[in-house]
Amino acid sequence: MRKNILVGQSGGPTAVINASLYGVITEGGSHPEQIGAVYGMVNGIEGFLSGHCMNLSESLNSEDLLLLKQTPAAYLGSCRYKLPNNMDAPVYGLLFEKFASLDIGACFYIGGNDSMDTVDKLSRCARLRHETISFIGVPKTIDNDLPVTDHTPGYGSAAKYVASTVREICLDASVYQQPAVTIVELMGRHAGWVTAASVLARRHVGDNPLLIYMPEVPFSMERFFDDVKKALDRQPNVVICVSEGIRDKSGKFICEYSNEAQLDTFGHKMLTGSAKILESYVRNRFQVKVRSVELNVNQRCSSLLASAADVEEAVLSGRTAVKQSLNGATGCMVSCSRADGPGYRLEFGLTDVGNVCNKEKGFPVEWITPCGTDISPAFHEYALPLIAGEPERIMENGLPRYISRAGAC
Amino acid sequence: MRKNILVGQSGGPTAVINASLYGVITEGGSHPEQIGAVYGMVNGIEGFLSGHCMNLSESLNSEDLLLLKQTPAAYLGSCRYKLPNNMDAPVYGLLFEKFASLDIGACFYIGGNDSMDTVDKLSRCARLRHETISFIGVPKTIDNDLPVTDHTPGYGSAAKYVASTVREICLDASVYQQPAVTIVELMGRHAGWVTAASVLARRHVGDNPLLIYMPEVPFSMERFFDDVKKALDRQPNVVICVSEGIRDKSGKFICEYSNEAQLDTFGHKMLTGSAKILESYVRNRFQVKVRSVELNVNQRCSSLLASAADVEEAVLSGRTAVKQSLNGATGCMVSCSRADGPGYRLEFGLTDVGNVCNKEKGFPVEWITPCGTDISPAFHEYALPLIAGEPERIMENGLPRYISRAGAC
Repeated sequence: MRKNILVGQSGGPTAVINASLYGVITEGGSHPEQIGAVYGMVNGIEGFLSGHCMNLSESLNSEDLLLLKQTPAAYLGSCRYKLPNNMDAPVYGLLFEKFASLDIGACFYIGGNDSMDTVDKLSRCARLRHETISFIGVPKTIDNDLPVTDHTPGYGSAAKYVASTVREICLDASVYQQPAVTIVELMGRHAGWVTAASVLARRHVGDNPLLIYMPEVPFSMERFFDDVKKALDRQPNVVICVSEGIRDKSGKFICEYSNEAQLDTFGHKMLTGSAKILESYVRNRFQVKVRSVELNVNQRCSSLLASAADVEEAVLSGRTAVKQSLNGATGCMVSCSRADGPGYRLEFGLTDVGNVCNKEKGFPVEWITPCGTDISPAFHEYALPLIAGEPERIMENGLPRYISRAGAC
Repeated sequence: MRKNILVGQSGGPTAVINASLYGVITEGGSHPEQIGAVYGMVNGIEGFLSGHCMNLSESLNSEDLLLLKQTPAAYLGSCRYKLPNNMDAPVYGLLFEKFASLDIGACFYIGGNDSMDTVDKLSRCARLRHETISFIGVPKTIDNDLPVTDHTPGYGSAAKYVASTVREICLDASVYQQPAVTIVELMGRHAGWVTAASVLARRHVGDNPLLIYMPEVPFSMERFFDDVKKALDRQPNVVICVSEGIRDKSGKFICEYSNEAQLDTFGHKMLTGSAKILESYVRNRFQVKVRSVELNVNQRCSSLLASAADVEEAVLSGRTAVKQSLNGATGCMVSCSRADGPGYRLEFGLTDVGNVCNKEKGFPVEWITPCGTDISPAFHEYALPLIAGEPERIMENGLPRYISRAGAC
């Protein structure tokens, strides 16, 4: 029986969340006997609830689809919306009415931990209502913090951006002879995966970044002082990478150290990152030139140097979800694991979404060196296949061409 | 008579300052009857004075040279060092002794306004001493603020990085429905060339960035409030680009607005950029989500998306300097102008370094729209040829391969 399918995006943008959407749309289009139209939720489940939905099969031609594959952020728009725990809540009735009116047979939600909670609830609710709609999650997060799966689409490109950008910052920091400290702040409030990728910037033993501070290791200002002192004794240019989420042993975030004192000229509280706090600390304790660099949103959404492996795996994740829905799977998330044997080869499968939703996979503590400020070679082996290759890119007037819902521009 | 040549780099890093160095080295190597070795000053004139110098002809093989061409920052290291005005100062005697001991016939200095002051003084000093050494400047600055020349190597790649990165930030900012303001801070304390490049991120009329604040236009908080209010009335996601150097009509930098009040938890003064000040202002006046993004050093040194036109023009600038030295030119800087006729074609020549050194070329006020917050289409015509094309790139383990003085890594 031919049914339509529905897809939404949720949570923070990544460089490849649209590549997963591309995978869902193109796989959807290749089963004309089973799948009719591919509909898209605009702004996730929240936008869908307010009636925002589009027919992707009609609105995107083949050139648009190629642009979609290389466009970062979230083409369909996103949301951060949590469905209620109570399955009798009216919102579920409304949702299943909408599914029925669009004749939806399967629904795919591309997102991270929180979005998998939506997949979990919708699939459980469908069972209670004896509805046969498939609900399948497609993983996406630069944080790489989803359990079960070897890694998540989005992480490879973020790791590649961080490694290459930090490598450039290290070169930039090395041009003068004067002692100087550069502190780079990286995303990942609870899990240090993105911060750890900064170690890939290092070109040889002893190269910058010399110090890497992960959220998995309690941070101490005294230890930090000693670390910086030793590093400056060794070489004049010291580059340090820190997670936005470093905390002291009491659990207080370092970025909260400024909250009491920091006011702008209008008397308002200023928000500051951990690197800025450490910049001020180093400047005053060491009397050296200090700079802090917050990589900010581009580390999650930049396609300037996307990973071809990541883009392809994102596409395959989307394709796998659609194929599995045709087998009747529901309440699952697409996951991947490395195949046995030499070389890097990924196998895609499914895991029960209950194994994933609202859970976090931290960075393995055994991959942090005993000194607490470096990452072990085991991580290199894990990460290098994820940042391999660069996708071909469609350019226009010297800039990457991206598509928006308003049309390709 | 066969002589050696000497080359140095000075001032801030760029994506293509090493491409100019590549041009000097390769052109130097192609005149074996007139030019012997190519020596490099390590850390500019300051390092050279302390005896830091290397034989580039010996130390770089052909593969190293290709890596050099794509490596950002300054391979030879840099300095910010001003020679004294008094031509009798002992430092000049020392320098010309060193030039003589290396049998130098021509010296090339790759840099911006301040570095051209060094070229000016050395060439005047040589005349006073009846020395026949050529001193020629090779322009380099992302700020694009050198007079006479149509533009400077380094600007094209910075403009391309800014345009493509701001385009990604605009996509990232558009994924949620909630009203939000994103403020991006760009380099160029006195001249708005780099900030203006953010307009190239816009894909169609009405696209972000909606507001662009240049250092050439006096900044007013009241006007800014009105501008933001109007923009938020029009659409929920507003991206604003500001120069680090925006100033109020009294000449006070906006980034200085915080200096009195801002202390970190240790009681020390924190340094803050203009975007951070405006972020705090918008958050408190508009009660919307606000984020500030400081593009920081990568806008000057990133090669993630370098401009092929810029790289080639940097190489040609270096080559031109060497060729002109063989004609006996001195006290000059390489400059470029657009050839007459259809299409973009650049001609390289020389200008007296006195026309350039310690002078600044601001952004043309007639290219700023009357409202003061936008850039006119005339700038697009000027800038698009400068960001055209992407150079081929040597990669290794998924990352761009760069060379350091310690060896290619």
